[in-house]
This record gives sequence, structure tokens and C-alpha cells, in this order.
Amino acid sequence: MNGAESLVRTLLAGGIDTCFANPGTSEMHFVAALDRVPGMRCILGLAEGVVTGCADGYARMAGRPAATLLHCGPGLANGISNLHNARRASSPVVNIVGDHASFHGAFDPPLAADTESLARSVSYWVRTAASVRQVGADAAAAIQAARTPPGRIATLILPADHAWNEGGVPEPAMPVPKPPVPAFQRVDAVAQLLRRGEPTVMVLAGTALSEPGLAAAARVAAASGCELRAMTQVARMARGRGRPAVDRIPYAVDAAVASLAGFRHVVLVGAPRPVAFFAYPGKPSLVTHPEASFHELAHPGEDLVAALQGLAAEVRGQTPNGGGGVRGQTPNGTSGGSNWESAAAVRSLTPNDPVRSLTPNFAQLLARVLPENAVVVDESVSSGRGFFPPTFEAAPHDWLQITGGSIGYGFPCATGAAVGAPDRKVVCLQADGGGMYSLQALWTQARCDLDVVNVVFANRRYRILDGELKAVGAQPGPASSELFDLSRPDLDWVKLANGMGVEARRADTLDRLADVLGAAMRRRGPFLVEWAGA
Amino acid sequence: MNGAESLVRTLLAGGIDTCFANPGTSEMHFVAALDRVPGMRCILGLAEGVVTGCADGYARMAGRPAATLLHCGPGLANGISNLHNARRASSPVVNIVGDHASFHGAFDPPLAADTESLARSVSYWVRTAASVRQVGADAAAAIQAARTPPGRIATLILPADHAWNEGGVPEPAMPVPKPPVPAFQRVDAVAQLLRRGEPTVMVLAGTALSEPGLAAAARVAAASGCELRAMTQVARMARGRGRPAVDRIPYAVDAAVASLAGFRHVVLVGAPRPVAFFAYPGKPSLVTHPEASFHELAHPGEDLVAALQGLAAEVRGQTPNGGGGVRGQTPNGTSGGSNWESAAAVRSLTPNDPVRSLTPNFAQLLARVLPENAVVVDESVSSGRGFFPPTFEAAPHDWLQITGGSIGYGFPCATGAAVGAPDRKVVCLQADGGGMYSLQALWTQARCDLDVVNVVFANRRYRILDGELKAVGAQPGPASSELFDLSRPDLDWVKLANGMGVEARRADTLDRLADVLGAAMRRRGPFLVEWAGA
Repeated sequence: MNGAESLVRTLLAGGIDTCFANPGTSEMHFVAALDRVPGMRCILGLAEGVVTGCADGYARMAGRPAATLLHCGPGLANGISNLHNARRASSPVVNIVGDHASFHGAFDPPLAADTESLARSVSYWVRTAASVRQVGADAAAAIQAARTPPGRIATLILPADHAWNEGGVPEPAMPVPKPPVPAFQRVDAVAQLLRRGEPTVMVLAGTALSEPGLAAAARVAAASGCELRAMTQVARMARGRGRPAVDRIPYAVDAAVASLAGFRHVVLVGAPRPVAFFAYPGKPSLVTHPEASFHELAHPGEDLVAALQGLAAEVRGQTPNGGGGVRGQTPNGTSGGSNWESAAAVRSLTPNDPVRSLTPNFAQLLARVLPENAVVVDESVSSGRGFFPPTFEAAPHDWLQITGGSIGYGFPCATGAAVGAPDRKVVCLQADGGGMYSLQALWTQARCDLDVVNVVFANRRYRILDGELKAVGAQPGPASSELFDLSRPDLDWVKLANGMGVEARRADTLDRLADVLGAAMRRRGPFLVEWAGA
Repeated sequence: MNGAESLVRTLLAGGIDTCFANPGTSEMHFVAALDRVPGMRCILGLAEGVVTGCADGYARMAGRPAATLLHCGPGLANGISNLHNARRASSPVVNIVGDHASFHGAFDPPLAADTESLARSVSYWVRTAASVRQVGADAAAAIQAARTPPGRIATLILPADHAWNEGGVPEPAMPVPKPPVPAFQRVDAVAQLLRRGEPTVMVLAGTALSEPGLAAAARVAAASGCELRAMTQVARMARGRGRPAVDRIPYAVDAAVASLAGFRHVVLVGAPRPVAFFAYPGKPSLVTHPEASFHELAHPGEDLVAALQGLAAEVRGQTPNGGGGVRGQTPNGTSGGSNWESAAAVRSLTPNDPVRSLTPNFAQLLARVLPENAVVVDESVSSGRGFFPPTFEAAPHDWLQITGGSIGYGFPCATGAAVGAPDRKVVCLQADGGGMYSLQALWTQARCDLDVVNVVFANRRYRILDGELKAVGAQPGPASSELFDLSRPDLDWVKLANGMGVEARRADTLDRLADVLGAAMRRRGPFLVEWAGA
């Protein structure tokens, strides 16, 4: 057995049965091994950013890693952006990167590059297989690293000769640690804090945003009077009717600071300290109150649900002092079917809130047409700042966002999510600027007949940059007009989608959008709507 | 004056007046400075791979660097692939990469990444501006580094606060060294070698492939009997009627080895030792004869034209011994107008040559319709292996290739070449697989109304990989069928181009192609032909 075959067998033994790929010459033996060993589903992406974004979306929905197959050096580089987003989402991914034969690199062939440094920039675990006998063991270690909570990027670099030589040894799966339950002392300390009744916000990330995590958090909020917030970008959040309506910390710094100004205590549940995406002259990096103290209930790799459930048990029976933002009702006043939704602590749903929707009508429409158990993949950027509040009462769904802020994640992540959750409708909310980074993913949706409705917000601008330019105190001029504008010529998303085999329609009015989107939700297979009223 | 403005003024003082850009928030002050300071042409690319590929094509044609404006971390990563190709082409490029404010990175915001390591992977010169006062001096040093022969990638990382703070100091241009003329001893040693009359091949790269370089090389070949070869991929080569018909070293290892088997001496003129793109089991890394000795006439950063002219003067009057491949005629027996073309030493033009065209009819057609002084940007990959011989007798033109082997270079390089040579017709020969990596460049062609005719070779496969799989001794199977196939669904390049505002036609027969291509050559502006007979 050659090294490549030992690798394929080790991946399969480790529970990896899906490989998103864009192969090159240095990966031919791996491809040949895939031909010989049954069991691996191979999905082609027409650029590496599609491949890695697919792996991110797959991992978020399937809860386990896919493999990627990437070409040496620059091929890997093309995939770094969406690996960056995956890393920030704690998505487990196992990258297999072919490289030059170990003896060939010394001749500095044209494609030679520092593959290992590129891999390190975005991976928790990197190894270059040192011999054919090691390939299987290295692959097993890569899978273990990727699956170690909360989920990590592992990159195995495979020199071509270690793939083609005989002497490969497939390895069984290595044990994967379960996320440890936080020490009782930490839970107890937070419980004591909450009993003091001072204005406190709990910031939730990772599995704290799962259904059981949110349920426990809501019980804590109901009992203690603390408020709940999600990170500005959530990797995956359970939302919709019957689930706690927890809003995000706003993206804009001033809004974020305003939304957190009332809290002197910040409890972190798998979340880092809330930080502005970017620094701006005269504005703070941390968006919490300058004197706020931080209390970490659980680290990202710990069992966040158990931590919240433990905390809920600790604070049970406590009477909230009313000073927080707890409401007895969900935002629109309805009462749901669960016993904890009424505890939802949401501050930012008032009509005058700075984060209210920039396109409220779209979000209201989405809330109406979203099918039960849908998966929303959201790279709507400026268009979507206010989408959360109007969709809390949609049918139950999961919501995925661009955690690392590197645009071009939407179409690929939606594509991978559809592979990872084949029985669920995926709705991709895609800003046009970011969409152009990785539109190639639409072709993979067509090839695999994936059930994805893509909505492109065709505002024909990098609109977020208008705000950013203003935020740094500058006025628009000829250069910024040229560089932020996506018209001249307008992008025709219907033609672009059709060119990749995806059916598409344009909608210029909300009525038309309602018709098109409603019909798209009822059919199966890939579809794209260009929403020209964005 | 803030740091950003000092940077813009320093770039302009250093002769950089074109900036290919895809900005993000950390670059807003630079954009604002571009708004205030006139003189810089800003050209938007809808993905960073477009931006960096444009800068490569621009540099190859304009002979001086453009600036790129890239977003921190993952934004730069998206541009690495085409920077890799630019590096292998010795194209001067000055990258300006915005990054987080110097104080903000410590908070690990979502987009934080190791920008400097990413930059180092592909740059000769990297610096992170250490203070606002240093920005101007750093930019001047970056330009100097980029313009140092033979041309290099320089990357200046600009923390946002050093851009927005006051205290910037613009700097005048620093001196740029001229390429040194090689020592006489080296020229003399090669002259002595050639006088021995043993079978010798001169491998040409860089400016050795310019019109005066080739003229001198042809005189050397005529006088000494040595043969001439270009590297497998040329950065830019002067070709066409009246110019020496120098063929490339073939891509396929066996063909490359066969083509060089007769030479025990290899003279390198700005070229590295000829190496296979990839290693294959049982095949050599170097494609020269195992006992060949190497003689370096000139390093890549030296004055290659002067070296060849010096060598020609040394060997003048020498009588070739007839043992080499010198022919008294150009390949097809015509005699041209120049006094040196008859010296063209081309070995690989026979009908049975292993590198003869896979699509000879296309190349013959191209030779017929190519306008005088055109620029051919060639990422035709497997389709184009044999395009060189049939086009030696086309109208005089320059030919640019994908020097680093990282696909997705064609459309962007053609776009930048058209900006760098605005009065010349650019013809982009683009394989469909590579084309899908960076099709976004078509939009920039439309926006800037660039005079580019794009020919897409729609063979609907990563056809090169069929050969590579065979070359490693494997048989096609289900995985390779899935991963090499670009049909199901077919890509519709006419719709894709139209979707980005570029007019397009499909041609299924050579007659139809001749009509469409001929008409496209006569009009001005961007156009795309999908050549479905490829």
C-alpha cells in the first residue's frame, strides 16, 4: 500500500467521509487512492476558497470535519481566507495539502513555495509527513487535532514521494477528548456575581448558542436578571419561534459601546472579550464599559452547555432585581410554547435602536417564508445589520455568520452546509461585493443539486466602506467613489448564476421578491434571487 | 499631513501612478488620501487575486511597478497566488497592505492574522511601518526594492493608526540600481566554451527574451552553432515575423529530457537550471543530460542584453561546426527582413515533435489574425502546449506566460497588461479551469473598457490532470472522473462574461471561430470567445 492509500484509509477510519477538493499534480496519487478505496465522497470546488469555505459550512452543520484536498503553496494560499473564517468559527477541518516530492524542492521548481508557513498562519496543527510510513499516523493525529474541542484547523502536508512510495500504514482513529466541564469554582463564582444583582451581561458563543445552551442561558437570565448577548458574528445559533431571542453585539463601535454601556460585569461563555472589528481614531478597542470586569464562565474548548446548565441550577429560585433587561415576553409580545422563551433578554429590539434593520422589509419577508428547520448562511454584511430582530419569530432555524470577517464566505459556506445537512433548506444571504469573491461555489451547488436558495443583496456598492470612510472622518472623493462602486457595469447575477447552471431571477420590488422567494422556498435545488431593492 | 498622505505622495514621487485595489476598512485613510492627492489612477479588482495579477501584467508591459492596495491578513492571502506568479516573472510590484492599528491587534479582533508571515512567503522585501514618521521612508525603500533588477515583490504593511496619525513625511524617490553588466571573465569563459564546438544549448529568460536580447542570442547561435531555448514559461518574449524563432523547453518531463538530451553544456542567461515542474516516480528533477555542465553567462539581476551582446562580439567571425541545431532558415523556410532571424535555432518544430500543437488549427488561426504589436497572455495550459511553433510567423508581438504555475493568472494578467500597454491589443488565451479561478477580472476589463480579446479554451476538463494522473502511473476511476470534469453542468462563458458586462460569443467550429476572432481583433474593447472546439 502506498502512502496515499494509507492516508485515505486513515481518514475513513477517523470518520471523515467527505472531501472537498481542488487537486493539482502533486495530489495525483491521493486522487488515484480515492479511486481505489471506496467510501469517500469527493466534491469539486472550482477555486480553493470554495473548497475551504465548503469545509467550514459542512463542519458547522455536520459537527465533524471534512477533508479538503488542496494544491501546494499558492493553492493553499487561495484557501486561507475561508480557513481563517473557519478558525474563528472553531470549525474542525482537516486539510490535505500535496507538495513537491521531498527531493524536488531543492531544485526550486516554479511552484515551490513555503507551504508550511502558509499553513501555520491559519492552522492550529501543521505537520509535513516525514516519510511514507508516517503518513497514516500523521493523518490520525491531524483528525484528532481537528476534533479536539472546540474544533480546530489541522493541516497535513504530503510530499508527493511519500504519497507514491510503498510502505503506507493506515491507522485507526485516535481518541477525541470530550470538552471538559468547567471547574465548579468558576460556575460558583459567576453565580455569586449574579446574586449581587448588579447590571451584568452574559456574552455567548459556540455551543452556548445551541438550543440547550440558549435554554440554560435563558433560565439564568430569568432567575438572575442578567442580560444575554451573542457575539457580533455567530458561528451557528439556534433561533426562531420557541427559542430565546438573543441579539448580537452590534458591529458599529458606537452602537456596540452604547448597547453594553450599562454593564459593569461581563460574563464570557466561550466568548472572547467583546472587541471592535477595527480600531478607529479616538474610539476604544474593547466595546465594553471601560471599568467593566470580565468573568469567564467557560473557555471556548469547554462544555459550554454543561457550564450554563450548572449555572442555571445554581441561580435557580433567585429573584431577579429588575435592573437588567429581562422581559416577560418575547419582543413582539407573543408567548411561545417553551417554558424558557419568556426569559429572553433582548435589549436592542426597540424601533429606535441603532442596529434596527437597514432593510427591515426584507427581514420581515424572510421571517415569513423561511421554512421550518432551515439553515441561514449570512454574509449580508451592511444589508443585514438588523436582520436578527425581525427574524426571531420565524420558524425554528439555525443561523451561521462570517466569524472571521474575511469576505467571500457566504456562497461556499452555504454549499458546504447543504452537504452537511442534506435534509434542510439552506438560505444564503449574500452581499454582492463578498459574493463576487467566491461566486464559483454556485457551480458546485448545481453539480451536487444542493438545496440552497441564494439571495444576493445587489446594492452595487461596497456599502460598508461608505460607513467605514465616514467612521474615520473622511469625505468621499474620486478614489473612494471609484473603489467602492460595483456598478459601471452592473453585475448581472441572473446571468452569472445561469452561467454556472443555477436557475435565477431578479426582483426589483418587495412584492416580486416575495413571489420569487416564496416559490424558491417551496422547490428543491439551487436557486438564486438577485434582490435589486437592497 | 497624515501617514497615508505621505505614502501616496511618496508613491507618486517614486513613479508609481497606478494602483490596483481592493480596499477594506483598515485601508480607509489611504483611500481618503487618494481622494485628496491627485495623480494616482485607481483600478478596482473584485477579488485580490485579480488585483495582484493585474499588477503582474502591468509590470511586465509597463516595465515599472504598480501599487496594489490589499486588506489585512486574509485579503493579502487571496492575492498570494498571483504574487507568486509575479515573483517568478521578476515583475516589480509594491504591495500596500493595510493592517489593524498597532494597539488593536493585541485584542485579537476577528480579522487579526499574521500578515507579515503571509507577506514574507511571497515577497523579497517586507516591512511593517513602525511609526507615522517612517511611512514615507518605508514606501521609498519599498519602491527601491521592487525596482531593483530584475524586479521584485515588495510589501509594505501599514498599521491603520500610522496611516491616520499626523506627522507623515513624504520622501523623494531613492536611487534604483541599474542591472550590472556581467564580469568579462564570465563572458569570456562562455565564449571559450562555445569555441570548443561541443553541443551546447543556451537557455534564455528575462530580458534575454526581449528583441535586442534575442537578436544578440541569435548572432551567438549563428556564429557558434549553439542552440537556443526559452524557459518552459516565459515572463515576456518578443516573437513573430522578423524575430528569432526560439522554442520553449517542453513542459512534459519526457519531452523536455528528449529535447535537451543532446547537450552536454547548458549556458544559462538569466535562467535557472531547467527543472521539471513536478517530480514523477523514476523521472529526474533536472531535465538536462545527467552529465551536463552548467555555465552561467548572467544572473537574473544582471544586464542580460549586454551579456549577450558582449558574447556575440566575442564569438563573431567564428565558424559554426554544424554539430548544433543551427539552421540557415526560419522553420517554415521563409526568410525575413532582419539580418539575424536566419540564425534562429529551433529544434522542436518538426511534425513529429512531442510538443507539437494539441490544437494546431487554433494556433494557425491565431497566427493569421493576431494584430501587429499585440500582447498575448497565455494561460492556455494543456491546450497551448504547441502554440509556439505555429505562431513564430505571426505579426510581431509579445507573449506572456504563467511563470509560477499557479493557475488563475490569465484574465488578471491580461487586464493589467492592457492597462500597462494601452495602445496594444491584448489577447488572453485562457484555459477554462484556470479561468474560473479569477473570472472576476472580466468585470475590470469592462469597467476600464480595456482592449482585451479573451479566448476561453472550453474543453470542460482539468485536462492537464488526465495527463498528470497517467504520468504517475494511475488509471482514471470515479474520484478522478469527478474531480477533473468541469461539465455537469457546463460552464456557459458567454453568460458569465455578459454577467460582468463583457460582450461574448461561442464558437463550436474553427470556421465560426475564425469569423468571431477576426471580428474581435478588428474592434476595440473587451470581448470573450468561448472556443468550444478546444
